[in-house]
Amino acid sequence: MAQTKADIRSFYWRDDTLHILDQRRLPALETWLILDSAAQVVDAIRDMCVRGAPAIGIVAAYGVVLSARTQTGKPMALQQRAILADMDSLAQARPTAVNLRWALQRMRYILEQHSPPSVAALLAEARAIHRQDIEQNQRMAAAGSALIVPESVVLTHCNTGSLATGAHGTALGVIRNAWRAGSIRRIFATETRPWLQGARLTAWELARDGIPATLIIDAAAAVTMQREHVGWIIVGADRIAANGDVANKIGTYALAVMARHHGARFMVVAPSSSVDMRIPDGGHIPIEYRDHEEIWKAAGLESPLPGIDARNPAFDITPAELVDMLVTERGIIEKPGRENMAKMFENVG
Amino acid sequence: MAQTKADIRSFYWRDDTLHILDQRRLPALETWLILDSAAQVVDAIRDMCVRGAPAIGIVAAYGVVLSARTQTGKPMALQQRAILADMDSLAQARPTAVNLRWALQRMRYILEQHSPPSVAALLAEARAIHRQDIEQNQRMAAAGSALIVPESVVLTHCNTGSLATGAHGTALGVIRNAWRAGSIRRIFATETRPWLQGARLTAWELARDGIPATLIIDAAAAVTMQREHVGWIIVGADRIAANGDVANKIGTYALAVMARHHGARFMVVAPSSSVDMRIPDGGHIPIEYRDHEEIWKAAGLESPLPGIDARNPAFDITPAELVDMLVTERGIIEKPGRENMAKMFENVG
Repeated sequence: MAQTKADIRSFYWRDDTLHILDQRRLPALETWLILDSAAQVVDAIRDMCVRGAPAIGIVAAYGVVLSARTQTGKPMALQQRAILADMDSLAQARPTAVNLRWALQRMRYILEQHSPPSVAALLAEARAIHRQDIEQNQRMAAAGSALIVPESVVLTHCNTGSLATGAHGTALGVIRNAWRAGSIRRIFATETRPWLQGARLTAWELARDGIPATLIIDAAAAVTMQREHVGWIIVGADRIAANGDVANKIGTYALAVMARHHGARFMVVAPSSSVDMRIPDGGHIPIEYRDHEEIWKAAGLESPLPGIDARNPAFDITPAELVDMLVTERGIIEKPGRENMAKMFENVG
Repeated sequence: MAQTKADIRSFYWRDDTLHILDQRRLPALETWLILDSAAQVVDAIRDMCVRGAPAIGIVAAYGVVLSARTQTGKPMALQQRAILADMDSLAQARPTAVNLRWALQRMRYILEQHSPPSVAALLAEARAIHRQDIEQNQRMAAAGSALIVPESVVLTHCNTGSLATGAHGTALGVIRNAWRAGSIRRIFATETRPWLQGARLTAWELARDGIPATLIIDAAAAVTMQREHVGWIIVGADRIAANGDVANKIGTYALAVMARHHGARFMVVAPSSSVDMRIPDGGHIPIEYRDHEEIWKAAGLESPLPGIDARNPAFDITPAELVDMLVTERGIIEKPGRENMAKMFENVG
């Protein structure tokens, strides 16, 4: 497809190193980091130089390649042990997204095929994970955008585009395709506190692609739905449980409740690597709490006010009953639930 | 009541000048501004040195006193004309809150009683408006807090405390009293983007009063309601239409929708000076849009990204059907609507 060529890449492998666009600096600065160890990849994920469930899965896979490169020449038994330790660190870097663990499982399988560990085979697998993610995004974008009727107004949350994936994006991929197909009249993007992925990353991606959009604060989504005939809320996912409950960026659940209240439809776009069939429902998904400093800093304080604590969950759980469409590379599930999820994802996780 | 003594005052009249705590600098700095002209009061309201519907009404009344003082000694005909011009500027300073216009009407009545204008009479009226606001807040706090059963978890939005009123507060006055009565187990306060009245002002007030609370981002209110058994959402109002629709800080409407979804109850606390019986419903309330720079600045940009606009409504409208309780100094209306509103407020506006 024509648009693939234009898609931003927010990370790539070159000269035996992993190049990452530092998303903490966007949109003001485009700074690239060059990583050559797994520990640096762990830091890059933990510090949110790179974020987005699919992206951190791919980047972690490249991190395993860097780990293996570092071990070359050491005694064979030590090599594998050291790589496995690095994989543990990578898996811990962010707890909510399951893609991270899924990608590491694929890498572990390759690791165990070769003795001593084969850097070439690991790199081939990381590249395959990366390439497949982009292909899946193209497939989801085509399928999801076909649901959008002309003159639609859509609202998206967080960043789910090329900066969150191998390229093109999940929810933002659907919006990109629907925009290019001429089906979208207006795009609203929430700023997505506290990290402002919408204001900093989605706005930057859309501006770069020449797709017009309107940025609003998260708290303005309700009045926007009330007054602007929003037809679709389109979001990504960090983990989807076996019953269809969706863990995604904090604020997603509120949007789903408001979509139901306003008669808008709610679409979740995520690759099957975000589906975790071992988790029966959303109540069992671990939710990452981020440093409360993110909240105090915005208020101009270095430390909390006495007696006041700040709670900073990074994700929330949207119950399956509020999801109208789940778009994956395997197909679309209307009103996801335990049965249709089991049918489509029986061999996942 | 004992707590009145301890209440913060965020503005007061002394030595023929109006002293205002600059809320833009809180919580990091407590800076006081000393104003001696109506134009300075207009700026202080427009620049949000002082905000909160009841507070800006009272401050505008003091602004008329400053205007009259400035005119003393000029020809009589010019005096009144100049004061009326200043009152027009004060009325325009913020469009959504109706208390501003209500207070100015009271001042205009006094202005027209005396020829030449009497600074003493105007000051007495401004002081009366101020004193009555505090008395009304005490009455609303007593009535509203009586609705809160022991062990309640409450959530509030924006700042509706001593910083938003003459003292004590509206919604936060209810919470203060309920806390002191031992009925509240936990208080959640939203940070309230884009101006962060919750994180900066409510947190500061509660810390100062020794009332513990938990600060969350606006987008975390839904997951908080889902998991923390929030019994009441308690908010203020900038204007209430004749049918009970409520204009209040952006994000209020989303909280009302989520309260209904989660079975929490939704309480609006506002003096009758916030009721505008000439406005049939919320659709007719003018909504202030603030500078989009507030949104871009948070993203680290001085100017918008190409093709991306930011829309920054400062208020939204909560339909009356989502309001469970309207607490005013005249009494409580359960499920406000055109009829019970007309009965309680027939002689308002």
